[in-house]
Amino acid sequence: MKIAIYGYGNLGKGVECAVNAAPDMELVGIYTRRNPESVQTHGTPVFSANDLEQGKCEADVLILCGGSATDLPEMTPALAKKYNVIDSFDTHAKIPEHFNNVDEAAKNSGHIALISAGWDPGMFSLNRLYASAILPKGTDYTFWGKGVSQGHSDAIRRIEGVLDARQYTVPVEDAIESVRRGENPQLTTRQKHTRECFVVAKEGADKAKIEEEIKTMPNYFADYDTTVHFISMEELKQNHAGLPHGGSVLRTGTTGWNDEHKHVIEYKLTLDSNPEFTASVITAYARALYKMHHRGVNGCVSVFDVAPADLSPLSAEELRAKML
Amino acid sequence: MKIAIYGYGNLGKGVECAVNAAPDMELVGIYTRRNPESVQTHGTPVFSANDLEQGKCEADVLILCGGSATDLPEMTPALAKKYNVIDSFDTHAKIPEHFNNVDEAAKNSGHIALISAGWDPGMFSLNRLYASAILPKGTDYTFWGKGVSQGHSDAIRRIEGVLDARQYTVPVEDAIESVRRGENPQLTTRQKHTRECFVVAKEGADKAKIEEEIKTMPNYFADYDTTVHFISMEELKQNHAGLPHGGSVLRTGTTGWNDEHKHVIEYKLTLDSNPEFTASVITAYARALYKMHHRGVNGCVSVFDVAPADLSPLSAEELRAKML
Repeated sequence: MKIAIYGYGNLGKGVECAVNAAPDMELVGIYTRRNPESVQTHGTPVFSANDLEQGKCEADVLILCGGSATDLPEMTPALAKKYNVIDSFDTHAKIPEHFNNVDEAAKNSGHIALISAGWDPGMFSLNRLYASAILPKGTDYTFWGKGVSQGHSDAIRRIEGVLDARQYTVPVEDAIESVRRGENPQLTTRQKHTRECFVVAKEGADKAKIEEEIKTMPNYFADYDTTVHFISMEELKQNHAGLPHGGSVLRTGTTGWNDEHKHVIEYKLTLDSNPEFTASVITAYARALYKMHHRGVNGCVSVFDVAPADLSPLSAEELRAKML
Repeated sequence: MKIAIYGYGNLGKGVECAVNAAPDMELVGIYTRRNPESVQTHGTPVFSANDLEQGKCEADVLILCGGSATDLPEMTPALAKKYNVIDSFDTHAKIPEHFNNVDEAAKNSGHIALISAGWDPGMFSLNRLYASAILPKGTDYTFWGKGVSQGHSDAIRRIEGVLDARQYTVPVEDAIESVRRGENPQLTTRQKHTRECFVVAKEGADKAKIEEEIKTMPNYFADYDTTVHFISMEELKQNHAGLPHGGSVLRTGTTGWNDEHKHVIEYKLTLDSNPEFTASVITAYARALYKMHHRGVNGCVSVFDVAPADLSPLSAEELRAKML
């Protein structure tokens, strides 16, 4: 199957690598809004986004690697009119609206589209669904990290006097352990995660003021126990260049006529590279879209609608013999 | 939807409880090869297995709670000719053969059947498939326990001089930790699990001989570090009456052009009651079968072929809004 990528940031670069590792996929091009000649890839030809809009791409599935804030709400419905598309839209509250827009565009043009692929939304969502269907009497918990939050890092960078910053979301280990023991704790925002910030200040900047601004920032930091470390640019580059992330989805529930038996289901990810893992999930779902479209499925779907077998390059017989 | 159960051992009892907890299911009967009047249920009417064979059951889905050794290889294909059926066939090596037999029976009669629902095979299989599709370069590990193995407990009970026994499969914590750290260890059978046996001996039995017979038993114990404790019947009943189990499926893999980023995916179950959890998985898949049959799907399927959304009583819209 032929795959194309739109957007060549961290995610697009991860998809290029993941598609190259897939035995059954050919990467036909990377599309960009930048000058194509300025984009250096790992050997994939680069084309202008204008070509995409004019319908010149021959990919079976187009992987959209734009941002959720402004790119994807426009991009995914527009391109679903011309191509089978997949995105990693991650603004949870706006998923129903985005789904409806993409569904209308894809249905009217006979294409298939999948939104919100990745790990959250994505694999974490799947595990919430499986666990709640199996244990209807129970409670869900999601912990993120330890990992870099790009949104929180960006928020710190916007503070006056800050040159660069990296923010780690850290789950509270005692809280996770309490959930794992089946104690069913009621946890506040502060009890679930802490935030650790590594900040490079401009020369002469008021560090006390920066720290205060971070710790009191509404939504991002005010509800958390936040630690701020001022470090040099060299140290930031040396020790905080990666984009690790991960987390756990847990469901604890009971069975038995008197709820006498406790069960704990945990799905845990420990990722060295958030964008490359997200790209790997998207690439597997691109394979599923190709198969589903060949079976005549149109419109918008999510990971909830995809049978697991469609994600694998192996045949149904091989899967049953090797993995069931 | 109307559900019926065939077989009323530990698993059948668990299904009775799980179906009662489902908001969208009605349990219409339990079928047994015993005298129906001798079977005491939690209020569900009991009928003879003969009624089933004569096609007198009106359930939308029939849940087969027989054993994998001798019951299900006959029972599932025979009943797939008359009903939509689901089983928990767990003899991994014989799954392809069982699948083909059931598929032929179900296809010819216009029914749907699902084999091998539960947690292994079942949820563990699903997690092996998802993880390998996402991380094509990687290694799988499955650890079981700590939990009671019925097969190993039965093997001990067959030894002369043994009144009763309970065998726990115990994963080697150091081995799991090594996998979690991404060290990619090569592990022998002995390095992955130990076996702990609690044995009630008959009065005057030769305990040293029993212990020797257990520890040298081929397939079951000879390849493991095995510990044997002789205890009283009272102690067995008081401390070892439950059927806990669980385990972890892990996949460690790499991404990046030089495999420079490691990732660990872990799915972990900690279960107070193996049969009740297995029953809960089967019940969710019975719901999916009902939906799929209404969409016109016939023949045999496995958990690999079921879209996750079909497991939930919630609508697609609710799922996207609440869980994606």
